[in-house]
Amino acid sequence: MSINIARNNKKRIVIVGGGFGGLQLANKLKGSDYQVVLVDKNNYHQFLPLIYQVATAGMEPSSIAFPFRNVYKNRKKNFYFRMAEARAIVPEHNLLQTSIGKIEYDYLVFAAGTTSNFFGNKHFEEVAMPMKSISEAMGLRNALLANFERAITCTTEEEKRELLNIVIVGGGATGIEIAGALSEMKRYVVPKDYPELNWEDVHIYLVEANDKLLHTMSDSASKAAYNSLEKMGVKIILGQRVADYTNREVVFENGDTIPTRSFIWTSGVTAVRIGNFNTELIGHGGRIMVDEHNRVKGLNNVFAIGDQCIQTEDAYPNGHPQLAQVAIQQATLLAANFKRLSKGKDLRPFHYKNLGSMATVGRNSAVVDLPKLHFSGWVAWLTWLVVHLRSILGIRNKIFVLLNWIWNYITYDSSIRLIVYARKAQEIKDRELRESQTHLGEDVLT
Amino acid sequence: MSINIARNNKKRIVIVGGGFGGLQLANKLKGSDYQVVLVDKNNYHQFLPLIYQVATAGMEPSSIAFPFRNVYKNRKKNFYFRMAEARAIVPEHNLLQTSIGKIEYDYLVFAAGTTSNFFGNKHFEEVAMPMKSISEAMGLRNALLANFERAITCTTEEEKRELLNIVIVGGGATGIEIAGALSEMKRYVVPKDYPELNWEDVHIYLVEANDKLLHTMSDSASKAAYNSLEKMGVKIILGQRVADYTNREVVFENGDTIPTRSFIWTSGVTAVRIGNFNTELIGHGGRIMVDEHNRVKGLNNVFAIGDQCIQTEDAYPNGHPQLAQVAIQQATLLAANFKRLSKGKDLRPFHYKNLGSMATVGRNSAVVDLPKLHFSGWVAWLTWLVVHLRSILGIRNKIFVLLNWIWNYITYDSSIRLIVYARKAQEIKDRELRESQTHLGEDVLT
Repeated sequence: MSINIARNNKKRIVIVGGGFGGLQLANKLKGSDYQVVLVDKNNYHQFLPLIYQVATAGMEPSSIAFPFRNVYKNRKKNFYFRMAEARAIVPEHNLLQTSIGKIEYDYLVFAAGTTSNFFGNKHFEEVAMPMKSISEAMGLRNALLANFERAITCTTEEEKRELLNIVIVGGGATGIEIAGALSEMKRYVVPKDYPELNWEDVHIYLVEANDKLLHTMSDSASKAAYNSLEKMGVKIILGQRVADYTNREVVFENGDTIPTRSFIWTSGVTAVRIGNFNTELIGHGGRIMVDEHNRVKGLNNVFAIGDQCIQTEDAYPNGHPQLAQVAIQQATLLAANFKRLSKGKDLRPFHYKNLGSMATVGRNSAVVDLPKLHFSGWVAWLTWLVVHLRSILGIRNKIFVLLNWIWNYITYDSSIRLIVYARKAQEIKDRELRESQTHLGEDVLT
Repeated sequence: MSINIARNNKKRIVIVGGGFGGLQLANKLKGSDYQVVLVDKNNYHQFLPLIYQVATAGMEPSSIAFPFRNVYKNRKKNFYFRMAEARAIVPEHNLLQTSIGKIEYDYLVFAAGTTSNFFGNKHFEEVAMPMKSISEAMGLRNALLANFERAITCTTEEEKRELLNIVIVGGGATGIEIAGALSEMKRYVVPKDYPELNWEDVHIYLVEANDKLLHTMSDSASKAAYNSLEKMGVKIILGQRVADYTNREVVFENGDTIPTRSFIWTSGVTAVRIGNFNTELIGHGGRIMVDEHNRVKGLNNVFAIGDQCIQTEDAYPNGHPQLAQVAIQQATLLAANFKRLSKGKDLRPFHYKNLGSMATVGRNSAVVDLPKLHFSGWVAWLTWLVVHLRSILGIRNKIFVLLNWIWNYITYDSSIRLIVYARKAQEIKDRELRESQTHLGEDVLT
């Protein structure tokens, strides 16, 4: 294997990861003096803020995924996409080792974002259901729906309780969004789709180790989210850490337990690691430490942007929040800096312009933190819709997402609750099914 | 596990399989004197005629899948769905053994359709890529797209040839539809999405053991399909049988070979088998032999409809063709007969009313056989579109399919070419990748 891209008279920038940052950087380098190579392990950009809607069967995977080759098709010249995973770098030879071979670079930009953080707990990594990618969200959707199906036919009350309890660990934006969406599913979908179940038997627990939800947002956002979720019937557990998940039970540090087969993990993220990266260059949260130009300390032609990097400035002594906006702004500046570099000009330093943050709790309910204004409720929800719709790539996806939302809003019914096989959570389900069914199939016939 | 459906004063009809026949039967029994239980291994009805569009990334899985619980939600009373696989029957106790336990029945109807027929060849079963379900179509889509990605970076001409040759075995409707869709992908998508590839290096072979395509349709349909596909650049091989697939080569009985990693199998079907079914009741193509009332010979309260059964009448001494229309008509009559049964009336015999058959080859191109009229081209294509759109379940799906078609028709671009993990063909790809990459990742480091 080789990456099969001929060198020309232009310098080559290799971007690892096509999330908000990587994609923005590639777009802004259009028409520049560089040859740009985007490397991603998937062949599509994922619009992560709506992943929870895939997990709860409200949205099609394809509505929030956008194939890179589609993004690039009108600007072929000097733009290349390669589906590959970055494995290691050899800075002394300007080489990136990937799953499809080595790639030579003049400049290398890491923009690979984050992955679920299990805080080093191998057991959690194996048994918890993460929700950091479309594949994982598809798997989670399958698992949740299969649990409902099984709850109808299982024979013990104990098993039924395990199947209908859902425990979400992590009270950040992802956690509250999935909790809200699941409680709407419980309220509007379960009674219609599963008349054999009592929808009140479905219990959704949201667990947060901090003493408030959305702890990176304002107090008023945190309280509004808490109140909305509580009104929707979500059981919120604050200030509690999960110690173990064993025998299909979540065990808390204080000894409390909740039986469940849906142990959903949104409890934090850690930056994607590049195999042999010098650990001295790695800061808090596994993030690559960069200077004010997003340059990796000590490596002259290697940069990192977005969630995968950590950069401080006066207003952010502990680094910027891991938000799409930071990645997009860093990418925009870095593209400009690359253009300045090629003209021999000095680089400009990065300053984050806080545009605010938001999260949605459910129908007509969201929280928005602007720098000087916090609001929640219906207006916040509409703001959330507009901002997210605007950010989705491509006309087709915008149309389909909008139609889907309108349809779901009016009918309370997405009609895409399919159990179609996918990765991770599904593998857990398969193994579980295998183990529970080894004896089945003979009990009548023998 | 138990199926957990209480018996009431109504007799219970258990339907195995929610395809065209099973679903029609369940629908027509609405408001009848029976308790109806539909059993299917998936939680959704699959609209099989459009599966090839999922395989070629032109259509979303959810657009042609319809969750049974959605179909049933407005007629809960005496209608039940259970996600399970039928394993065996114990007719003397009126019991169906399933993957979730035993189900008692008063009447049992098999409507489980067909599965890919590998003619007993275990090797083909392992290595060929079938396309009989949405899961398989998703897997096939992933495999085809991954092959294009890899073709860009592979290092030998030999491997590239294997990756860009696509061999479709079977010249029936499914075979010509996928051949047509792939040749459009080659012509309109590859040049835009994969500028690094020469689209003319993509070769699509359609292999049929008979001496004509669409051999169950009229000669004029067969010729029109042949001419259209040939004009579109599909290499059609007639009168040739595949003897083997080995070392990534399709080997024909005459010794010819075609190197390929896309060995697509649409070469025939065999009825789904129920574990312990008396082989004397099984006829041609694995189909359950039934009398003119669709009753299984010798079993008074067991019926079979659609592709899974074989039934003769004067005009069809070898059984009916395996078409949706036959299943739907049999289901309609059987529902009426069940109602007659409950009133103590005699059953009516089945007579198939041939409404014709059709297949599409590509944009503006289809063939239609009506009983007394054969036509092809643009009008046939429009007929095909209207008939299929009408048959798709649910308003939402109709809207989304229509929008998708309009979008694709105008833009030549579906923008849903995602490689998202799924079953079967993907498993083949994974294994292949594992084998080819065991040595990779070290060749730079160490």
